[in-house]
Amino acid sequence: MAEPKLLGGVEAGGTKFLCGVANEDGVVLDQVRIPTTTPAATLSAASAFFAKAQARHGALAALSIGSFGPLSLRATAPDYGSITSTPKVGWSQIDLLGHFAQTLDVPMALDTDVNCAAVGELLFGSGRGLDTFCYVTVGTGIGVGLLVGGVPHGGANHPEAGHIRLPRALGDQAFDGICPFHGDCLEGLASGPAIRARWGMPAEELPPEHPAWGVIAEYIAGLCASLTYIVRPDRIIIGGGVMQPIDMHARVRTALHKQLGGYDSSIAELDMDAYVAAPTAGDSAGLTGALAIAHRLVTRQWPMHWAIGAQQNSVSTLSKVS
Amino acid sequence: MAEPKLLGGVEAGGTKFLCGVANEDGVVLDQVRIPTTTPAATLSAASAFFAKAQARHGALAALSIGSFGPLSLRATAPDYGSITSTPKVGWSQIDLLGHFAQTLDVPMALDTDVNCAAVGELLFGSGRGLDTFCYVTVGTGIGVGLLVGGVPHGGANHPEAGHIRLPRALGDQAFDGICPFHGDCLEGLASGPAIRARWGMPAEELPPEHPAWGVIAEYIAGLCASLTYIVRPDRIIIGGGVMQPIDMHARVRTALHKQLGGYDSSIAELDMDAYVAAPTAGDSAGLTGALAIAHRLVTRQWPMHWAIGAQQNSVSTLSKVS
Repeated sequence: MAEPKLLGGVEAGGTKFLCGVANEDGVVLDQVRIPTTTPAATLSAASAFFAKAQARHGALAALSIGSFGPLSLRATAPDYGSITSTPKVGWSQIDLLGHFAQTLDVPMALDTDVNCAAVGELLFGSGRGLDTFCYVTVGTGIGVGLLVGGVPHGGANHPEAGHIRLPRALGDQAFDGICPFHGDCLEGLASGPAIRARWGMPAEELPPEHPAWGVIAEYIAGLCASLTYIVRPDRIIIGGGVMQPIDMHARVRTALHKQLGGYDSSIAELDMDAYVAAPTAGDSAGLTGALAIAHRLVTRQWPMHWAIGAQQNSVSTLSKVS
Repeated sequence: MAEPKLLGGVEAGGTKFLCGVANEDGVVLDQVRIPTTTPAATLSAASAFFAKAQARHGALAALSIGSFGPLSLRATAPDYGSITSTPKVGWSQIDLLGHFAQTLDVPMALDTDVNCAAVGELLFGSGRGLDTFCYVTVGTGIGVGLLVGGVPHGGANHPEAGHIRLPRALGDQAFDGICPFHGDCLEGLASGPAIRARWGMPAEELPPEHPAWGVIAEYIAGLCASLTYIVRPDRIIIGGGVMQPIDMHARVRTALHKQLGGYDSSIAELDMDAYVAAPTAGDSAGLTGALAIAHRLVTRQWPMHWAIGAQQNSVSTLSKVS
């Protein structure tokens, strides 16, 4: 009988690193939530977790990391495997893959946090059965993951669709935007920090009747329109803190339908309720996706046999793990 | 010895249909240029060409069509294989695949004209050796073909990236745009007909020092920026009548570099001369691409062995064929 394969996954975020190990059936055997502090402290805590997990559960067969970025993902780049130039203090030019390669001699993969979350949605959430879809998160930043032909899309490095520019919404001409690179790109206008800068309070404190929500929905719909025309996805899944108000998906659908302008029957007749959807793979979809990518590194296939229950369980117990 | 395989290709354009047959080595044995008039006249002339070609060269093994659109390309759609709602009078709801299936019982493929041209560039032009790139044409309309992972990208139907919306260029606020669906989407602002409407003369009559060119370059660069952030291509190939002025690619590169705003080293350090390129596969890249897709229908592989010479020859003799 072949030795059981232990899969390792990391969801590397700006506030926490989730690390987990799972068996071949996707059952999470061990996981830890590490606060993101300095790279040295955070990454050595992550390594310590995997060392302990291997002592308990046997050798890892593969490790997959989904990380905040920007990342260097082109295999021929000199800084391949690193976070490149992030606004997060201390985390620029941090060699993620290099760090884990110091202690682990296994196949490793690195992709964006949003691509990993998209894989989680593909297997256990709103992306099930779809060939091509977008996963958008609107929060501290605006990130977009793309599944094309059933696999995460990277291209020459990785998409950064939060930085596209759009026409300014009516009544939002005066605000300059806060993106350090582009000023009023989408992220500079509609991310959480942009909302706070524009309206003087964080998104979660804006009352439901505040006109800000119409403006924000207009911008997010603008992203969806560009994704529609450029990628032609089967669905756009949108999550993140800014999408929390109960009617935000409805607002985005209405604005998107209007922006698409009845162009071409296949677009004009899109069922907006199905086309613009909330994520449903749970809060740790990124870790789930990373573990699924580790499975694919070992077997060359997505783990279509993983039980949703095993993953859901991992989600619900997550907050109890220290 | 296996019977030689005859490949058929159609480049279906708004002004002409190019039809051709080639052998397995990509040598064009026969071709014809049919003016695009009514669907009945144009399509029956195309069918007559393939009937005659088969009488001379043997049975077709596959037929591939690259067409203007919008097209219905989702295999499960009731109108699959048709031109859907085109502004070109008389050509809406025309069943292209259905027409050819009346007389030909062979595997058939239909894709956009720009995706077929992109395949032509992949094999014989500026896309050689690339995994992911965009092919943009700026003329009567603005079309974008995408090669992702070495194959044409369709998604849920096919991209229509000419219809994205962008911030208005400085000094171009007053013009409403001419897109019947969106007004001032990119195509409504920077296509040939939009240029004529905006500045009162066709692009080919605008003098080189006219300020229009700066505005047009700004919009095309805006498309390139959105393609960069969403698709992360290895290259963007831009052709079409509006790109004819000798310095248009240079203008677009300069505007794009500025718009990208130094974001992330992998984007900030792009070699713009290599990144934004002119097409080099010749005027019939669309027919070449269609024939290559026919080859792939038969063999499941791109014809990497096709000699550039054979194609170049077909390009140069094209104008002599009646």
